[in-house]
Amino acid sequence: MSSWGHRHVIDLATFSCDDLAKVLELAQRFRAMPFSGVRKLPALQGRFMTSLFFEPSTRTRSSFELAARRLSADVQSFSPSSSSLSKGESLLDTARTYVAMGADVLVVRHRCAGVPQLLAEELDRSGERVAVLNAGDGLHSHPSQGLLDLFTLARHFSAEAPTPEVLRGRRIVIVGDVLHSRVARSNLWALTACGAEVVLCGPPTLLPEAFASFVEAPPPGQAGDPVPQRGRVTLERDLDTALEGADAVMTLRLQKERMREHLLTSLEAYHRAYGLSHQRLKRCGKPVPVLHPGPVNRGVEMASALLDDPSVCLVEEQVRNGIPVRMALLYLLAAEAAAAPGLTAA
Amino acid sequence: MSSWGHRHVIDLATFSCDDLAKVLELAQRFRAMPFSGVRKLPALQGRFMTSLFFEPSTRTRSSFELAARRLSADVQSFSPSSSSLSKGESLLDTARTYVAMGADVLVVRHRCAGVPQLLAEELDRSGERVAVLNAGDGLHSHPSQGLLDLFTLARHFSAEAPTPEVLRGRRIVIVGDVLHSRVARSNLWALTACGAEVVLCGPPTLLPEAFASFVEAPPPGQAGDPVPQRGRVTLERDLDTALEGADAVMTLRLQKERMREHLLTSLEAYHRAYGLSHQRLKRCGKPVPVLHPGPVNRGVEMASALLDDPSVCLVEEQVRNGIPVRMALLYLLAAEAAAAPGLTAA
Amino acid sequence: MSSWGHRHVIDLATFSCDDLAKVLELAQRFRAMPFSGVRKLPALQGRFMTSLFFEPSTRTRSSFELAARRLSADVQSFSPSSSSLSKGESLLDTARTYVAMGADVLVVRHRCAGVPQLLAEELDRSGERVAVLNAGDGLHSHPSQGLLDLFTLARHFSAEAPTPEVLRGRRIVIVGDVLHSRVARSNLWALTACGAEVVLCGPPTLLPEAFASFVEAPPPGQAGDPVPQRGRVTLERDLDTALEGADAVMTLRLQKERMREHLLTSLEAYHRAYGLSHQRLKRCGKPVPVLHPGPVNRGVEMASALLDDPSVCLVEEQVRNGIPVRMALLYLLAAEAAAAPGLTAA
Repeated sequence: MSSWGHRHVIDLATFSCDDLAKVLELAQRFRAMPFSGVRKLPALQGRFMTSLFFEPSTRTRSSFELAARRLSADVQSFSPSSSSLSKGESLLDTARTYVAMGADVLVVRHRCAGVPQLLAEELDRSGERVAVLNAGDGLHSHPSQGLLDLFTLARHFSAEAPTPEVLRGRRIVIVGDVLHSRVARSNLWALTACGAEVVLCGPPTLLPEAFASFVEAPPPGQAGDPVPQRGRVTLERDLDTALEGADAVMTLRLQKERMREHLLTSLEAYHRAYGLSHQRLKRCGKPVPVLHPGPVNRGVEMASALLDDPSVCLVEEQVRNGIPVRMALLYLLAAEAAAAPGLTAA
Repeated sequence: MSSWGHRHVIDLATFSCDDLAKVLELAQRFRAMPFSGVRKLPALQGRFMTSLFFEPSTRTRSSFELAARRLSADVQSFSPSSSSLSKGESLLDTARTYVAMGADVLVVRHRCAGVPQLLAEELDRSGERVAVLNAGDGLHSHPSQGLLDLFTLARHFSAEAPTPEVLRGRRIVIVGDVLHSRVARSNLWALTACGAEVVLCGPPTLLPEAFASFVEAPPPGQAGDPVPQRGRVTLERDLDTALEGADAVMTLRLQKERMREHLLTSLEAYHRAYGLSHQRLKRCGKPVPVLHPGPVNRGVEMASALLDDPSVCLVEEQVRNGIPVRMALLYLLAAEAAAAPGLTAA
Repeated sequence: MSSWGHRHVIDLATFSCDDLAKVLELAQRFRAMPFSGVRKLPALQGRFMTSLFFEPSTRTRSSFELAARRLSADVQSFSPSSSSLSKGESLLDTARTYVAMGADVLVVRHRCAGVPQLLAEELDRSGERVAVLNAGDGLHSHPSQGLLDLFTLARHFSAEAPTPEVLRGRRIVIVGDVLHSRVARSNLWALTACGAEVVLCGPPTLLPEAFASFVEAPPPGQAGDPVPQRGRVTLERDLDTALEGADAVMTLRLQKERMREHLLTSLEAYHRAYGLSHQRLKRCGKPVPVLHPGPVNRGVEMASALLDDPSVCLVEEQVRNGIPVRMALLYLLAAEAAAAPGLTAA
């Protein structure tokens, strides 16, 4: 497989259809591994992945680490006490330390948007060939989650050939706290690149009007859009209307602190207006899958019975797909690094 | 080696003599490894063991992880902050997440009795083929500790051929806080299955009369006893009397909080009545070994000089044997999983 | 490569020129690895290194763990909560537990000087063949840091052949809080063994007069000095004078708590008197490198612009060299263990 041109993975706004196709194709191959006798590939033997999780997340960190090990990479975790890293400066020093120790990939999570991008730029500037993989930064982006959601949806529509094309023209509803969701933003870029029609649904406090034009211009600092023609994004305040004709529904985690911020009146009212249930999904007119980035608040984003029905709710399937998708990203980044010209032997 | 029929390891009450013999035989083989040039076996290459220690324990967790690595398995640890997991429900969600990520074995410790059993049942119900290995649940069971104690005793009586048979008719004294000890309970099942005569010794507050009939009926939920004829269990309040004719002595860790609970008057009084020393062991009439699950409170369960005498006190030998015994369990569970019929390829 | 006679690495005072030469030679070979296609050596396959960091240090622990993995060793970390280990006694019990589990090397850091030595003696006494590697003990010693500093300097003077000889007659200035620095102490032994002339510089509160004769006698408990003729150590209170004719400068981390202890009046005054900058380094009369054990307090030990200039400041190079130097130590200790006579098969 030829290199794909991304030295880092920061934001899905920079991904072309071809990039997405490469990730899905590799993920599909890696996903088949455990059932064909091969449990571990030597692809990244002797390479080091360091996870720098400045914002804690056992789930995502474990998924990256397991993916790395399945490719025979070595893994080093760094989980800073929040106190020791209050300044952006020392954060870069921490990253440099791990690069000097030989890290090939830094998987970075931080509560501030832009930190992985900043690290990537600074490390590029000093000629390091390390790859930075954004594992979630503030409200900005969570590309591996966006890709595993895409893979899960594509497999739902075509388990044998989950390509970006199978998403074309599908009506995908994203419901909930879009404003505070980096997952929703990454999904918007990925889904529209594949030609899906995205319907956003939520109250004005959690879904401002501006989101209707979210994918119409590349983000600040990016020259152009790598996708010639994106699927349409529309807003719909009423969930029942949004669900009409839907092919799939993604619902987002609701942080309880939104209540304290007066963006919501009550969890019960939220569930009545935006919560999913078997009953409500009948509005779609056909059986459709439900996705959620996890962990789910039972009885808030969806009814407990829906969460426990794997024929509809794909939450565990998403977790399962996280491994091969992250393997694909690590593999492609390593291939890209190997193809990089003019390495300076120190 | 043929599969042994246990998909999970929860409680030694379900172990037949044959099951115990298989564990001891494998452990004996694994124990010989480091001295014959082989340091690592490829048996579990590409398999993942996840340790879910909801109750922290560096010792036991390290032992399981080292055992897994000696068999070339990959290891992922999950050490939850107690806050994030207050509900039993989300505990199952956590387990499901690791299963979805590909865990082959979950090693589970929890302060509540029954949690590993519950997880195993729920995961079986959803068709997962993951194995659950109980690493200690409340006061219920600690099977790997019971087995390493058994292995240590069997090796003491017959270093070359440590089979269950070498325990038959031996008089084994278990002294101390039996009531609060999952280790004692696991030892009771294992020792009596081998035909050993167990003498329990301790004050009524820490050793109720009911323990005399502990192994007479299988635990709730278990159909029958896999052992046709168990060794006898007797109670003896006086340690000097208990020690007469003993072949080995096991003493149990005394939690200091028992004082606050008014189950004890003083540590000094406890040591006088139930503490072991070189002097006291003379009552046995011959040299006998002393076991303790560790860590020992020096001067409480035993005199400091006894702890430091490896010719009598087998505490380090128990820690050493923990590795091959846990390797044996992981190996047998993997063999069982491989032999399982009708796996659903997802 | 023949064994070198050290069963443990506790203090560089015991290192001969030949010992240092062996470490540098191996480190140079290991450092070349990633650039010649080999990323991992099987040398320590199946061996276990346990890091016992009773004083936390993510940096040093990560460096040791990565070094161990590059040699295919397995790694187990133990990071005790300070509460569970308040007594020296249980510290030894913890070490014994890991030895019983099969650890081949214990990498030990502790805030009290002498702990690694004590552990090594106790474990030797009980016939264990585990190696103890001091990763920093109180104010006493930090041998792996001293060796990586030596390697970094030797490579600066001769990138192709970084032997101890290239240090002979060099004037090396060590500036700062020498009194509280185990790094400075280890550097003093290593540099003078190579025949370098060391100039110590700092205020009397942080650099007592007695340091002028620091290397003149072996430390308590050591029979003789393995180095026949050491380089000279002098004290110079004025930094500008110290820098005249210098070939390299090492500056030490200043703990902010020195202010509370009234050993310093202000950080600004300290920087004016002992801080490094491009301007100040002109006093050397030629371009010289600056080393620092990290992490640097910007604007205190050195100006921010100096820290960010890799043509002068070798901080990242030191971190990079930490890996091959620690690989060399682990390799030599394993070779020594393999050569040890009369192992008792348990």
